[in-house]
Amino acid sequence: MESMMIYAPIVMAVLGLIFMAVKRSWVMKQNSGDGKMKEISDYIYEGALAFLNAEYKLLAVFVVIVSIALAVVSFVVPTTHILIVVAFVFGAVFSALAGNMGMKIATKTNVRTTQAAKTSLPNALKISFGGGTVMGLGVAGLAVLGLTAFFIFFFHFFMGGEWTNTMDMTIVLETLAGFSLGAESIALFARVGGGIYTKAADVGADLVGKVEAGIPEDDPRNPATIADNVGDNVGDVAGMGADLFGSYVATVLAAMVLGNYVIKDMGGAITDAFGGIGPILLPMAIAGAGIIISVIGTMLVKIKSNDAKEPQVMGALNVGNWVSIILVAISCYVLVIWMLPKTMKMDFFGEGLQEISSMRVFYATLVGLVVGAVISSITEYYTGLGKKPILKIVQQSSTGAGTNVIAGLATGMISTFPSVLLFAGAIWASYAFAGFYGVALAASAMMATTAMQLAIDAFGPICDNAGGIAEMSEQEPIVRERTDILDAVGNTTAATGKGFAIASAALTSLALFAAYVTFTGIDGINIFKAPVLAMLFVGGMIPVVFSALAMNAVGKAAMEMVNEVRRQFRDIPGIMEGTGTPEYAKCVDISTKAALREMLLPGIMTIGFPIVIAFVPMLFGMNNMAIAEMLGGYMAGVTVSGVLWAIFQNNAGGAWDNAKKSFEAGVMIDGKMTYKGSDAHKAAVTGDTVGDPFKDTSGPSMNILIKLTCLIGLVIAPILGGHDIEATTSEDTTEEVYILNSEANTVVVAEKQIKNIVKSTTIAETSSLKSLNETEVRAQLKDAETPQN
Amino acid sequence: MESMMIYAPIVMAVLGLIFMAVKRSWVMKQNSGDGKMKEISDYIYEGALAFLNAEYKLLAVFVVIVSIALAVVSFVVPTTHILIVVAFVFGAVFSALAGNMGMKIATKTNVRTTQAAKTSLPNALKISFGGGTVMGLGVAGLAVLGLTAFFIFFFHFFMGGEWTNTMDMTIVLETLAGFSLGAESIALFARVGGGIYTKAADVGADLVGKVEAGIPEDDPRNPATIADNVGDNVGDVAGMGADLFGSYVATVLAAMVLGNYVIKDMGGAITDAFGGIGPILLPMAIAGAGIIISVIGTMLVKIKSNDAKEPQVMGALNVGNWVSIILVAISCYVLVIWMLPKTMKMDFFGEGLQEISSMRVFYATLVGLVVGAVISSITEYYTGLGKKPILKIVQQSSTGAGTNVIAGLATGMISTFPSVLLFAGAIWASYAFAGFYGVALAASAMMATTAMQLAIDAFGPICDNAGGIAEMSEQEPIVRERTDILDAVGNTTAATGKGFAIASAALTSLALFAAYVTFTGIDGINIFKAPVLAMLFVGGMIPVVFSALAMNAVGKAAMEMVNEVRRQFRDIPGIMEGTGTPEYAKCVDISTKAALREMLLPGIMTIGFPIVIAFVPMLFGMNNMAIAEMLGGYMAGVTVSGVLWAIFQNNAGGAWDNAKKSFEAGVMIDGKMTYKGSDAHKAAVTGDTVGDPFKDTSGPSMNILIKLTCLIGLVIAPILGGHDIEATTSEDTTEEVYILNSEANTVVVAEKQIKNIVKSTTIAETSSLKSLNETEVRAQLKDAETPQN
Repeated sequence: MESMMIYAPIVMAVLGLIFMAVKRSWVMKQNSGDGKMKEISDYIYEGALAFLNAEYKLLAVFVVIVSIALAVVSFVVPTTHILIVVAFVFGAVFSALAGNMGMKIATKTNVRTTQAAKTSLPNALKISFGGGTVMGLGVAGLAVLGLTAFFIFFFHFFMGGEWTNTMDMTIVLETLAGFSLGAESIALFARVGGGIYTKAADVGADLVGKVEAGIPEDDPRNPATIADNVGDNVGDVAGMGADLFGSYVATVLAAMVLGNYVIKDMGGAITDAFGGIGPILLPMAIAGAGIIISVIGTMLVKIKSNDAKEPQVMGALNVGNWVSIILVAISCYVLVIWMLPKTMKMDFFGEGLQEISSMRVFYATLVGLVVGAVISSITEYYTGLGKKPILKIVQQSSTGAGTNVIAGLATGMISTFPSVLLFAGAIWASYAFAGFYGVALAASAMMATTAMQLAIDAFGPICDNAGGIAEMSEQEPIVRERTDILDAVGNTTAATGKGFAIASAALTSLALFAAYVTFTGIDGINIFKAPVLAMLFVGGMIPVVFSALAMNAVGKAAMEMVNEVRRQFRDIPGIMEGTGTPEYAKCVDISTKAALREMLLPGIMTIGFPIVIAFVPMLFGMNNMAIAEMLGGYMAGVTVSGVLWAIFQNNAGGAWDNAKKSFEAGVMIDGKMTYKGSDAHKAAVTGDTVGDPFKDTSGPSMNILIKLTCLIGLVIAPILGGHDIEATTSEDTTEEVYILNSEANTVVVAEKQIKNIVKSTTIAETSSLKSLNETEVRAQLKDAETPQN
Repeated sequence: MESMMIYAPIVMAVLGLIFMAVKRSWVMKQNSGDGKMKEISDYIYEGALAFLNAEYKLLAVFVVIVSIALAVVSFVVPTTHILIVVAFVFGAVFSALAGNMGMKIATKTNVRTTQAAKTSLPNALKISFGGGTVMGLGVAGLAVLGLTAFFIFFFHFFMGGEWTNTMDMTIVLETLAGFSLGAESIALFARVGGGIYTKAADVGADLVGKVEAGIPEDDPRNPATIADNVGDNVGDVAGMGADLFGSYVATVLAAMVLGNYVIKDMGGAITDAFGGIGPILLPMAIAGAGIIISVIGTMLVKIKSNDAKEPQVMGALNVGNWVSIILVAISCYVLVIWMLPKTMKMDFFGEGLQEISSMRVFYATLVGLVVGAVISSITEYYTGLGKKPILKIVQQSSTGAGTNVIAGLATGMISTFPSVLLFAGAIWASYAFAGFYGVALAASAMMATTAMQLAIDAFGPICDNAGGIAEMSEQEPIVRERTDILDAVGNTTAATGKGFAIASAALTSLALFAAYVTFTGIDGINIFKAPVLAMLFVGGMIPVVFSALAMNAVGKAAMEMVNEVRRQFRDIPGIMEGTGTPEYAKCVDISTKAALREMLLPGIMTIGFPIVIAFVPMLFGMNNMAIAEMLGGYMAGVTVSGVLWAIFQNNAGGAWDNAKKSFEAGVMIDGKMTYKGSDAHKAAVTGDTVGDPFKDTSGPSMNILIKLTCLIGLVIAPILGGHDIEATTSEDTTEEVYILNSEANTVVVAEKQIKNIVKSTTIAETSSLKSLNETEVRAQLKDAETPQN
């Protein structure tokens, strides 16, 4: 008996994609302006395509290699099915498709926004946010569509479309993890590669163009200028899109895995109107509802007055955002009440099975929504123009670059305090409400607004580009004023968007971590075991070294760009006079190749370390359960350290950036107004140089690093662990221990804790043994011995 | 029956202190030079005394407050004895005494080294290293003396000087932990306060003196110059001394705690020639032997030729160092063979009791010695003049301060890679050899060379000061040349010394962590429990925020110093002409007060967080064992993150420093020799400004942070945990579960894992139940039910 509800998320995803297509064609129909505007825009579009083409070539190689590896594993390991390869490939393709879509629409929307800004600010907002909406709905729609379709396919393939038991469903979800792995692998390329790309092009263009050749920023004579503009889209649009696509898929997957274990805790089967898989369908349903809600939310973003300023624009975005969040909360309430059993049993580790009402799952989703909202405010506080931390960095700029850098570092470091307390509180609260299922659903609820978040995010770089095009094509000042209003709001949303991405990565990783533990069948990860503790250390080190590699990569790639730009200035005749055309595509190509090459080492480290930890000890005959625990320690180390370094680097980078920007309007230092060009401003520029790779390369990469690490762990998990307690112990008949107890409750706990060593019997019928004391039982057993010997 | 061996470490400590006293009087008898030299030296000495006096006042208040708190706890909590207060006070006093001694001798030795350098380099080395030796032996001697004396006292007080049982010994060691807590608390003040002091004075002196007034460095007309010189001693001599004093005591204590559990694992009592406490006495014996070995080692440090250069001086130090390490290895071998039972039983978590030969404990000590040696090489590689990482930073200086800062940060971050792999390997190996007892003894063996290490360390700032005095008193160039040779070697040893301090802190914390787990009686720390995971996150955040607070503190304190120096230049007539005397003491006082005030917030955070985590959930009625696990998660988070940030900050700071210094001799950039005063050099100076608080304030503070956190945990442990499995379960008669099994071995594991929930019986007599199947047992039980109801 299968409910139609399983198809609902697909329907909602398709509705979202249809709305996206309509919106897309509306945006494309807008006036894309005249001669010079169009020319610049076309260069950016072609550059973006060049990047995508180069990227896809490399990705194809990568996908083939990993597919072969997965196929080999699926032949060797009986618990891994070959279909995981199919899921992996589709995950990769869908993620790439989402990025492709976003990049294209963003590079088409920018010039249309400039054109609209000539006459109307409300229209400019409508178009630029429309482009963002296309991006957001594309990512969310494809994520839900792909994941749900594969789930239904595997559900029919492995289980015939009907609930059989927890172990079969585990195989379904393990295979589905391939989809998530594919998506996250592409995210690694998009985020890290994109981060290196954008900063290499930026530095290359500035150093040779501005400093050496003395031509202004964004000058078409600079061969690297198109690469620079492409970079903004590559990093902020495609990178962020792939990042959130990965989070969306992984979060829902992890919640489904934990939903499966809720059913197991309730006795292995439940009866509901959803074919007995309500707890597994719930996260998908929330994700599907989130798409429709985001459509509604985006429709609310509009302003009426042509004289509106930043607060009105920000207000319009806030209305859309908050309505989305409230609607998600309401839909979570409805869905939880509708889809979950009224009371459920959950196994709280160390406390045994507990009966909890489904309302507690709803409370857990509220925790997730609160985290999403609060982390944005925290990020805004530590990086926002005019806030106390930024003013302090500005003050410290007056005593030189050294003190500016120290102040920026300290700001980023201190910002970990409220952020980590927020995460820790969220873990605690959502777990207290509904176990790790609650943690995963908190993440799912937060991620339900992804389409809306991404629309707000992508809107930023679109307006940034629109302003650039206005400047380069020498529009009237009013056009630039209007795009500046949108751009200023976009800067704020870009910072808060990064906070949201970190929070989503953190919660997603925790959910994956919990799913990992249940997949492997271990009872927990005990860091008092020395090998586990050692791996916790190693895991903690990885994000630090990864960040350093990413930062060094930017340096190397930038130097190549510098050399190429110098070469073109030297070799192409008439380039400075505007009669020779620079070879834009060459710079784009160099930046692309350098980016993809330089991200190989951190990429290999990310993928290689968990594999080495899992398989090298296996060669030495180490116990699989011990390895699983070690790998878990490694994952925890990467997650904890990665979240810290993500917050630290993103906020420090954002703070330096805005400290520098503060000088544009002028700042008060020691009672004197200080502007651009002052020594203090130069010091602030140095700080911003340090912050650039922090906030655009290494910082955002942390999100992918922690999610991908946990996902690889999840994919390895079935190889390490038996599927379940039943599976392992049924072959384990030589080690029988009978546990008899006065209270059924106590026995359950004992059972769980020794499940890998002993087989325990179900002993409900022994509950009346209460007053039988030790001596008496022993006497019984003594008696029992005699006939046996 | 008590062995005299218990007194041996005291004897060795006293011998070491006697040797120290002899060395001290020899150093003091050396010629302290003439007029100006003496004058400058006296100012530094008085400044140091001024700092010590101010520090002691604040420390007295702190000690009184903590003593009262401990006394209250000891009245409320039956497992905590009032004598812990006495131990705490003495620990604090001994640590302060050791720091006092070191500061005094260092500030007396500097001028004597300058004087000796007038005629003889070998003599200058002999005197400066003699001063270092006094410091090293003072610290090590007092540590061993204090710890051993208190152990003997408590051993007699609580156990009558004879082995009774594990639980009594646990009380002895818990009370002894007070000594360690006292020592580490003082270290917090010395390291953090000292770090803030030295950088505040440095920046203040440079900014007003060099930049504003245009007078050279170390000019006596600069009111802050004495504070600056005092700062070198406060940070590098007293801070390092207190740090290693704390590590020394904590390591030996932790090893003793774990030795006690070895005896427990062996059945609760052993028979040996050491009153049955050989495994507990062993770490003290190694520490005692280390003192004598260090005396021998220091005697080997000498050069003969007056024309010797850096390599010869470095060679002389290396001879002393390596001989010490080899002698420690030999003495470990002898002591292990002599003092430990030939085969021992140890409880390897998750693998049950294992028989191991005592030789494996010896191998564990070798692991510790290797770690100590290798970490120094790693540090030397990442921070040493002429090494690849430094050359790269130098190259990156040519493109500005921004790229220099990025390169320095990246170097520090990448240096965590080999360091963490080394630590992880050491944890794994020493645990594999001999469990956590092995980890603690690895740390003990490494720390046995503390006196020698500290002699080498303290020698650096002494020579640095000696050079400064030579410069200020306008000696002939040959004098400065000779002190420069010593100073250059001192710079290298300072960097490697920091590596040693980090390694010691890391291993010490791990040993304390292991001791904590055994004290609380929990079975491990399972990060799959959400509250534990949340605390792992919070713990990981603390070192980051602590570092930021320390960095900000330097900034604030420096500004106060700047204002005071400006005031003196303005208000004291004739100061610039040399006719008015600057009020040196005022600057010293300001630096001191600011340092001690500014370190309060990070100090409160360090002490407060574990206390809040332990006691707030208690108010809400949370289970003590659950709290103990949470606190353990917090400790692990602080340790992992703290070690990472210590390596990162120390090595980045050291690398920037030497990149800047590289310009003094000139460096090749893009084929051109580049020197001081170039733009690249200015960029390198900016990097060094950032690195200063990294390497002298926040970086070294991490050592204390992680050790103190683990020590506070250890002191709280008895409040949280029952002492032992016997203690908790004997009150737990309502929850009886009988575990019956065919193999005794399997049962033991099961027993351990459920010990806090159920009471398990010893069931050796059921081993013949092998062929009794489930149904039959159930039938037996059914029968048993009837008469009960």
